[in-house]
Amino acid sequence: MAAKQVLLNAFNMNCVGHINHGLWTHPRDRSTDFNQLAYWTDLAQLLERGLFDGLFLADILGVYDVYQGGIDLTLKESIQLPVNDPLLLVPAMAGVTRHLGFGVTANLSYEPPFTFARRMSTLDHLTNGRVGWNIVTGYLESAAKAMGLERQVEHDRRYDQADEYLEVLYKLWEGSWEDDAVLADRQRRIYAQPGKVHKVRHQGEFYRVEGYHLSQPSPQRTPVLYQAGSSERGLLFAGRHAECVFIGGSDHAAVRAQVDKVRASAVAAGRPADAIKVFMGISVIVAPTEAQARDKHAEYLLYASPEAGIAHFSSSTGIDLAAFGLDEPIVERKTNAIESVVKTFTGWTKRRLLQQHALGGRYPLAIGSPAQVADQLLAWIDETGLDGFNLTRTVTPESYVDFIDLVVPELQSRGRYKTAYEEGTLRHKLFGQGSRLPREHAGAAWRAQPENTRRSNL
Amino acid sequence: MAAKQVLLNAFNMNCVGHINHGLWTHPRDRSTDFNQLAYWTDLAQLLERGLFDGLFLADILGVYDVYQGGIDLTLKESIQLPVNDPLLLVPAMAGVTRHLGFGVTANLSYEPPFTFARRMSTLDHLTNGRVGWNIVTGYLESAAKAMGLERQVEHDRRYDQADEYLEVLYKLWEGSWEDDAVLADRQRRIYAQPGKVHKVRHQGEFYRVEGYHLSQPSPQRTPVLYQAGSSERGLLFAGRHAECVFIGGSDHAAVRAQVDKVRASAVAAGRPADAIKVFMGISVIVAPTEAQARDKHAEYLLYASPEAGIAHFSSSTGIDLAAFGLDEPIVERKTNAIESVVKTFTGWTKRRLLQQHALGGRYPLAIGSPAQVADQLLAWIDETGLDGFNLTRTVTPESYVDFIDLVVPELQSRGRYKTAYEEGTLRHKLFGQGSRLPREHAGAAWRAQPENTRRSNL
Repeated sequence: MAAKQVLLNAFNMNCVGHINHGLWTHPRDRSTDFNQLAYWTDLAQLLERGLFDGLFLADILGVYDVYQGGIDLTLKESIQLPVNDPLLLVPAMAGVTRHLGFGVTANLSYEPPFTFARRMSTLDHLTNGRVGWNIVTGYLESAAKAMGLERQVEHDRRYDQADEYLEVLYKLWEGSWEDDAVLADRQRRIYAQPGKVHKVRHQGEFYRVEGYHLSQPSPQRTPVLYQAGSSERGLLFAGRHAECVFIGGSDHAAVRAQVDKVRASAVAAGRPADAIKVFMGISVIVAPTEAQARDKHAEYLLYASPEAGIAHFSSSTGIDLAAFGLDEPIVERKTNAIESVVKTFTGWTKRRLLQQHALGGRYPLAIGSPAQVADQLLAWIDETGLDGFNLTRTVTPESYVDFIDLVVPELQSRGRYKTAYEEGTLRHKLFGQGSRLPREHAGAAWRAQPENTRRSNL
Repeated sequence: MAAKQVLLNAFNMNCVGHINHGLWTHPRDRSTDFNQLAYWTDLAQLLERGLFDGLFLADILGVYDVYQGGIDLTLKESIQLPVNDPLLLVPAMAGVTRHLGFGVTANLSYEPPFTFARRMSTLDHLTNGRVGWNIVTGYLESAAKAMGLERQVEHDRRYDQADEYLEVLYKLWEGSWEDDAVLADRQRRIYAQPGKVHKVRHQGEFYRVEGYHLSQPSPQRTPVLYQAGSSERGLLFAGRHAECVFIGGSDHAAVRAQVDKVRASAVAAGRPADAIKVFMGISVIVAPTEAQARDKHAEYLLYASPEAGIAHFSSSTGIDLAAFGLDEPIVERKTNAIESVVKTFTGWTKRRLLQQHALGGRYPLAIGSPAQVADQLLAWIDETGLDGFNLTRTVTPESYVDFIDLVVPELQSRGRYKTAYEEGTLRHKLFGQGSRLPREHAGAAWRAQPENTRRSNL
């Protein structure tokens, strides 16, 4: 069997400081241009030159206000604040590319499924089937309060709500319009055929919907579904719904274990083990030689902000690290925390966390020559069963340019990275099959069937 | 005083059949390409060539299901169904233009103000200050049911909610970040200054928000505010909030009266009478000679669908015209109806409505040579006090091309239309002043002041 090809997303966010904090102060870093359209269209074209499978856009509603009990450092170092809407970047980037996929984070907790379904269908149309959705429910208290809630909804309860939300979306995306509903027949004056467009009637615990999906069938119907949950409940959700899962990682053994859990979750839901592609976040610093890469790393560190890194960490875990001594280990556990982060870093001292969060943060950091970086990437893939990476930015767009000019050719020369895009939708490119959800996926069960739809003209 | 220059928006919608129904069947009509990005980027470039002030994008949540008690004709003639999200068109169009403004309809009833505020700020950033928002609250029963409500909220109550929604938005857009909050100072490592970003605390009848606006100040902060209410309560709302008001129209006297009411509403709210620009919808069929224009009109009529026109009318008024005899006048009045449409057409017979809705619908239809059309447009402006037009499409993009090639030069030769864009934001272009809300506008009162904000670090 041929060795597995590496899948690759750029990992980014519509903000200044994303993962590798403080580098916005580097003279060559352009992340402070994030409010400008050209910053994003240039990036999209760059990534397409590098044959990236996708651009994965993170998002957060709310602010990081745990560290020092406020947002002072968050503002100074621009730690994911300000942060603009990621969905609105996609149409402009789609307009200047032909193949690049877009995995966009959207929080389902604060938007009715009916309008969200239309938003994603619109993107799937405009991108010609290149859109994915990273499903999140949010965990920040500050977001819940901004939305008028007293407090954040409890973790597992959010997943129950998400399960129902997805069910409503499948009904709208998969079940409302039959494949041959749209004729666009000018002679017979039939744009869409009555009887082939069905009213969705949903009455559940969280949602109630009675209406026709507003968009006609888009190339993928359901966008490619991304998810990042690592808790038991999160994995149950992933097994049912996710097609791509995004994980953090510290070492091969832990990642191997997590990959296995993700695959087991798919199998438990009646899907093939490889129905889910697993991506790990990673930061790469590469140069023509190892020495040059080490120098670059040292130079980047001059601008990095380890303190901003642990301020971010403080909100992810709910633990204010400002109150900790340098050699005090992190053992506290909060209710509303990102479980994978807690899992990876429990027992670490603040000193070690500061070092880790200077560059890399919750994801591994690979430094070296093109061959060395390729070795490390392929070892991750081959030793853990991973499918690919979400590549963070360090100094941007420099770090993507370096990767594309140096690592991509190295991976290609080893036969481990594509040398051209395939035609077709994002789902087709990722899985080599059709554009639609596969038969075994939970969403496929909602394709126009008598029991969950009703003729429009009755 | 120099005669008033004509302001001009293209009036469009992310769907096939918008106002002049049935013309999608015309061999040269391209509206069935609305799912494709290039359809919109081509249109934006065309409109910028014609120096249009803006593209006004209508929207509807829900379907037209009153006529014949269902959506059969709605589907066959594609009467605003399918209809995709309009906001997502803007970034792509902004990427291929430099001056064109975008007035986008968004229904406030089903989205929390906190996330909507970020969406619009993101658009204002990406367009470099070219975005406007057409404020609607929705009126369709079918939309309310799709959103999980038992029934549509009562008309005046929706405006009460809208007033509070706007108050929350002003607090976020105008009050959360001070003008000099963002320094982006790499040397001092200060992206934004603590103490200059304020938490909004709102507790009202409909909304409760406690949080920082997520976007840094955009060029216009508050997008240019469009509105189309013509009821007494709607005019009260317009007087407080609207900067551009969009009206229908049948004759000079009725339009003059409506324009006067709009201006009076501004004055009643303590604003100058010309603080609101008033636009009327209009359809234009123009050709080099009058005879050719009449021929074109006759040819278009071969493809028009008067029945689709009155099906649309039926949902706008809540009256199923399928049940009416040809000579029966419309006198019924429904609770959830578009008041301006009811007002204009009460007493008309179905026969006359069918004729009117073949082409033009609820807006006047101007047919003729370039000089004749210019005469008509200028008569509307000069006789009624209107500021400009929302130009519907007939056969698209042909009708915009005709207008730009034939009518624009005629208006320019009379000194009544700009010959080049001014630099600056949409608000600056429309009002010739700054980019921000003027001092007298209700929203300006919410600029960072001690009583409605609080230092982030207290």
